[in-house]
Amino acid sequence: MNKLKELLAELKPAMAEISQQPGYPRAVYEPISYILGLGGKRIRPAMVLAAYKLFNEHYSPQVIQVAQAVEMFHNFTLLHDDIMDRSPIRRGKQTVHIKWDEATAILSGDLLQIEVYEKLAEVGDITILKLFNAMARELCEGQMNDMQFEQMAHVSNDEYLHMIHQKTAVLLGFSLQAGALLGGASTAQSQQLYDLGISIGLSFQLMDDYLDSFGETAKVGKRIGGDILEKKKTYLWNEMWNRLENSQQKEIESLYAEPDSEIITSVKRYMVQTGAKDATLNLAEHYNLKSLETLAQINTVGDQSYLSEIVYMLSSRDN
Amino acid sequence: MNKLKELLAELKPAMAEISQQPGYPRAVYEPISYILGLGGKRIRPAMVLAAYKLFNEHYSPQVIQVAQAVEMFHNFTLLHDDIMDRSPIRRGKQTVHIKWDEATAILSGDLLQIEVYEKLAEVGDITILKLFNAMARELCEGQMNDMQFEQMAHVSNDEYLHMIHQKTAVLLGFSLQAGALLGGASTAQSQQLYDLGISIGLSFQLMDDYLDSFGETAKVGKRIGGDILEKKKTYLWNEMWNRLENSQQKEIESLYAEPDSEIITSVKRYMVQTGAKDATLNLAEHYNLKSLETLAQINTVGDQSYLSEIVYMLSSRDN
Repeated sequence: MNKLKELLAELKPAMAEISQQPGYPRAVYEPISYILGLGGKRIRPAMVLAAYKLFNEHYSPQVIQVAQAVEMFHNFTLLHDDIMDRSPIRRGKQTVHIKWDEATAILSGDLLQIEVYEKLAEVGDITILKLFNAMARELCEGQMNDMQFEQMAHVSNDEYLHMIHQKTAVLLGFSLQAGALLGGASTAQSQQLYDLGISIGLSFQLMDDYLDSFGETAKVGKRIGGDILEKKKTYLWNEMWNRLENSQQKEIESLYAEPDSEIITSVKRYMVQTGAKDATLNLAEHYNLKSLETLAQINTVGDQSYLSEIVYMLSSRDN
Repeated sequence: MNKLKELLAELKPAMAEISQQPGYPRAVYEPISYILGLGGKRIRPAMVLAAYKLFNEHYSPQVIQVAQAVEMFHNFTLLHDDIMDRSPIRRGKQTVHIKWDEATAILSGDLLQIEVYEKLAEVGDITILKLFNAMARELCEGQMNDMQFEQMAHVSNDEYLHMIHQKTAVLLGFSLQAGALLGGASTAQSQQLYDLGISIGLSFQLMDDYLDSFGETAKVGKRIGGDILEKKKTYLWNEMWNRLENSQQKEIESLYAEPDSEIITSVKRYMVQTGAKDATLNLAEHYNLKSLETLAQINTVGDQSYLSEIVYMLSSRDN
């Protein structure tokens, strides 16, 4: 993990800078400072730098600005998504709309989004601006799909994978692509990096879904079984549901209707018995292999060790 | 009004284009199509074109894109402000968060904001992008000030004028400035146009406040007295309040505490008696004169008649 640590150390001043929000009125800036100060793994800005290092040894101001922009944009989506999803907790702390109020959370998010574009204007690269916009549009579409899926009795695996592609993977794709372009990648190379980000993102989200049911609270940092309680139609859920006998499906339905039932334990047992757990791990592994293949194909002059470490770290995330 | 009509006719296809939102999922695009289709006076895009015509006879694709961007951005602010202000009605129709729901309104607004930046990326001018960002930041600050003022017992005239500068005037300033720059204005000329937009905006908002109490429902298009009922601390209100005797202030306070009181009639009478109504009209007229002076100073090669008509129309708005 030495390479990632190195990137995170290099990012530290840039991350500290964005969480300083000295403007007035304070009421609209304090929530931005708060959410950017909550931390997080800073994996997206690290990916920007790692992709840059494939092509260029010395950082330009632009690559740092893009690293800041992706972290700010990620936090903007969390801020607004938490309102939409009525989530009270984020990274172990109160969400903005709970700590302040909804109007403040909407407006601070809007301002944070404008600050993202201020960073992109400083970068001054219209191609990157257009790639960012296309990504941001997809991410909004993904959030709407995610919300609509909650109201649907059945979501196909294709629909689900398309949604996580939009909601999780495209921002990772953009992070790698923009870092590569600023480092001097060709259009073809930058597209390979985008594709790499997509497969990393899909694998990451499938593992996230797996860990939500089968992880350990201490390692995952949240209560286990949230998706099951919400009856979230993930790939993991679908693979189980589609393999169940009609009588078993009815049994589960009745458990959901019954308060204080052992729903998490029962559903997890079915997820194992039906092979849905293994199917999910296999699909995550499929995208991991794809990532490693893409990584091997990228022909660069620079240091590949940073990005390799990130890919290996994310792909071996079994806890 | 022939010149403005001409501009609005020229804008028609561009305005129709932005209200077509063919993307998927439909649930996130329909509200954007809805709010952009509600109409409105399209005064901001007309100002972009009018400022352009001061310097250039033939439209470029860019000037139309900026005209679209300012109208889209204006509607984005309405969409999100209506959630924050809990407004049920906009342009005689249900607001987005009522017709759909809050989560949809937040997300559609976010997507509309991204579409604004897609237009600005098409324009491809980093200077205009930076001016837009600075304006959008001020507008967010203004909205927060406006919300905070609702909770304050007293707001000074300086604070109020600063707030309407941010919330109303800067977007008009940007519209004229960006149109001028695209037409070929010098930096100094574009700054004059920005200043013109500011004085137009301040006068416009002061007249809007005046008409909210003293207009006619049929002409203004909304119920008269809304600001009074909400006890909004406008310049008009402040000028009245600061001139009242202590006993008169107490009398008004008691009317607010009493249901079904003739509060609107009583406050309006005081607004007239104290001279607050005239003071507001005088300040609006002061900014009008400033607008006309600035207009006269602008040294251009092109057709000034479009912008002149808009300035005269907005400044003579007494109904």
